Amino acid sequence: DSSSNLIRATLFPGDGIGPEIAEAVKQVFRAADVPIEWEEHYVGDQIDPRTQSFLTWESLESVRQNGVGLKGPMATPIGKGHRSLNLTLRKELNLYANVRPCYSLPGYKTRYDDVDLITIRENTEGEYSGLEHQVVRGVVESLKIITRQASLRVAEYAFHYAKTHGRERVSAIHKANIMQKTDGLFLKCCREVAEKYPEIKYEEVVIDNCCMMLVKNPALFDVLVMPNLYGDIISDLCAGLIGGLGLTPSCNIGEGGIALAEAVHGSAPDIAGKNMANPTALMLSAVTMLRHLKLHDKADQIQNAILNTISEGRYRTADLGGSSTTTDFTKAICDHL
Amino acid sequence: DSSSNLIRATLFPGDGIGPEIAEAVKQVFRAADVPIEWEEHYVGDQIDPRTQSFLTWESLESVRQNGVGLKGPMATPIGKGHRSLNLTLRKELNLYANVRPCYSLPGYKTRYDDVDLITIRENTEGEYSGLEHQVVRGVVESLKIITRQASLRVAEYAFHYAKTHGRERVSAIHKANIMQKTDGLFLKCCREVAEKYPEIKYEEVVIDNCCMMLVKNPALFDVLVMPNLYGDIISDLCAGLIGGLGLTPSCNIGEGGIALAEAVHGSAPDIAGKNMANPTALMLSAVTMLRHLKLHDKADQIQNAILNTISEGRYRTADLGGSSTTTDFTKAICDHL
Ligand SMILES: CC(C)[C@H](C(=O)O)[C@@H](O)C(=O)O
Ligand SMILES: CC(C)[C@H](C(=O)O)[C@@H](O)C(=O)O
Repeated sequence: DSSSNLIRATLFPGDGIGPEIAEAVKQVFRAADVPIEWEEHYVGDQIDPRTQSFLTWESLESVRQNGVGLKGPMATPIGKGHRSLNLTLRKELNLYANVRPCYSLPGYKTRYDDVDLITIRENTEGEYSGLEHQVVRGVVESLKIITRQASLRVAEYAFHYAKTHGRERVSAIHKANIMQKTDGLFLKCCREVAEKYPEIKYEEVVIDNCCMMLVKNPALFDVLVMPNLYGDIISDLCAGLIGGLGLTPSCNIGEGGIALAEAVHGSAPDIAGKNMANPTALMLSAVTMLRHLKLHDKADQIQNAILNTISEGRYRTADLGGSSTTTDFTKAICDHL
Repeated sequence: DSSSNLIRATLFPGDGIGPEIAEAVKQVFRAADVPIEWEEHYVGDQIDPRTQSFLTWESLESVRQNGVGLKGPMATPIGKGHRSLNLTLRKELNLYANVRPCYSLPGYKTRYDDVDLITIRENTEGEYSGLEHQVVRGVVESLKIITRQASLRVAEYAFHYAKTHGRERVSAIHKANIMQKTDGLFLKCCREVAEKYPEIKYEEVVIDNCCMMLVKNPALFDVLVMPNLYGDIISDLCAGLIGGLGLTPSCNIGEGGIALAEAVHGSAPDIAGKNMANPTALMLSAVTMLRHLKLHDKADQIQNAILNTISEGRYRTADLGGSSTTTDFTKAICDHL
C-alpha cells in the first residue's frame, strides 16, 4: 500500500486567490513526486466556540496530528466577537517562531540584487499581548510582554537554524536603549543562547539602525532574530527589498516541532478566480515545509524550478510584469521538474 | 545698534565631531549674512539635579527663552542615575514633534532618486514612556501610552505643516489592527484633525506595509505622521534611502513654538578633531530652524549652496566617497553663497 509511505500534511487553501494558488502547489508537488498527501481544511462560516474563531477545532487538530501544514491567505471575516484567523493559529498551535527566508530572485530585478537573509520573529508575545485598556478618558495603554521562556525559545531556534543551514551570524534586533527591561531581557536570553553556539557570530543591532542598514546594504545581514513587532516590520521591509510579499515564503514553527508554512500576502479578492494570481510565495512556503521535513532534494528541485522559471522571464504573472496565467506559470514550473 | 536686529538662538555644539560641524554651520551662516546670534551651551561634566542629566537647567532655559536652538550630536555619558541627553531635552522642553524632511540629494547617487517626504514623529510618549517592570521572575512588561492630547497635537502639526509647505497628503502610520486601543486612539485623533483640512488628502497605512512600500517605491509618500517608536524606525529607514543620517536634517517642535534642530547622527569619536566630519546634516538642520523662523530666503540660499556643492561632487567628505576636509567642504559651500 503506497499511501502508507505518504506524509500527511494539512492544507488550508484560504480565501480569495487561495484555492487557485493552493491548486498550483498541489500540481507542482505531483510533478515532483513529493510523497505528501494533503488533508484539506476550510475556514468555516460559523464561529467555533472552542477556538473563538472561524477556524474549527478539527482543522487545528489536523495540524497538530500531522505536524506540518500549508496555509493560503485568509481574509479574517469582519465582525465582533471572534479572533483574527492568523492570531488564532499562532495562539492555538503555539507557533512561536516565524521564519522568513528572503533572497534576491535571480533574473527578477529590483533595486537590490544581493539580499540573502533570514528573519526569525518571536510570534507569540511582545506587542501582540492583546492587553490594552483605557486608563482615564483620553489616555490608553497597551502592554508589551517579554518572557524569558519565549525569548530563549526563539533565540534557540535562530541559532539552531543558523547552525543547521550553514549560516554564519545571528543579529538580535532590539530597542533596549529605550525599553531596557523588556528588550533587555530579550537580549539577555539571546546572549545566553549565543554562548552555546561559539561557532556562530552574534551581534546586537538597534532596530532603527537596522532598518537604515537594511535599505543601504542588506548584504550586511545573515540571520536576524527579534521580538514580535520588530519582526513584523522588518520581515515586510525585507520582502520589499526583493519584490514584495508575492515572492517571499514564510514558515511558522510551533511547540513539538509543528511547522505551518504560509503565504503572507493578502487574499486579493479583486483578482480571485481570474487565473491571474502569482502562486510563488505559497510554493516557496511549501518548499520551507519540505525542508522542515528534511526532504531537501525535493525542496531543492522545486525551488530551482520556480526560480528558473521566474529568471527565464518567459512565464511571469501580471504582478511581476508578465502576462501569464496562474496555470501557465505553474505548468512552466512543472516542465522544469 | 545692529545687534538688536539679531535673533538669538541657542547652540549646543555637542560632543565628538560636534564642535567642528557646529563651527562649519557658523561659518556658513556668516557667509550668508543670517541675522542670528548664537548663544553657546555645553554639556556639563556633572549631573544637574534640576534636569537629572548632564544638561544644565540654564542651557534648557536658554532654548526656552530664545525659542530656537541647534544641537550637535551628544554622546550620553555612561553611568547610572541620570537620563539620556536626548530624552532629557525632549522631556524638559516638551518637544512633541520630530520633523525630518528626507529628499534625494541631486548628484549623490543611492538606489533611490525620487525620495521627497517628511516624517513627523510623536516625540513624547508611546513606547518611550519609561514605564517598565518585572511582573514575576522571567516576565517583564513595558507600557505604551497614547493620549488624545499628544496625538491631536502632533496630528495638528502634521496637517498644518502639509498645508503651509505645499504638501498634498498626510499618511498616518499605525498598527491598529493589533493595538486597537492605543494606535486606534492615535488614528481617531488623526481623523478628527483631517476633517479640518479637507484640502489635504488623508490615508492610513499599517507600519509593516508602509516599510515595504517605502523600500519599493518611496515616491508613494508625502507627509507621514506616527507614534514615537514607528517614527524612530521609519525616519531612519527613510534616511537610509537617501544615504544615511549624515545627510538628513531633523527638527524638534515644542510647546509654545520652540524649535530645536539637531543632527541625529552620532558623535563619531573615532574621527573627532580630524577635520573629516561631514557637517551636512547639522547644516540642513540649521536650515529647518531658519524655516521655522520664516527666514525662507536665507534657508533657500543655504540649502541650495549645500546641495549644489554635494551635487557638483568636487568637494565631498570621506563618508560620501570624497576626500575633502570639513573646512574645504564648508568653504566650497560659502563660495556658493
Ligand atoms: C495581518 C496581521 C495581523 C499580521 C501581523 O501583524 O502579524 C501580518 O502583518 C503578518 O505579518 O502576518
Ligand atoms: C538615541 C535614541 C534614544 C534616539 C531615539 O530612540 O529616539 C535616536 O534613535 C533618535 O532617533 O533620536
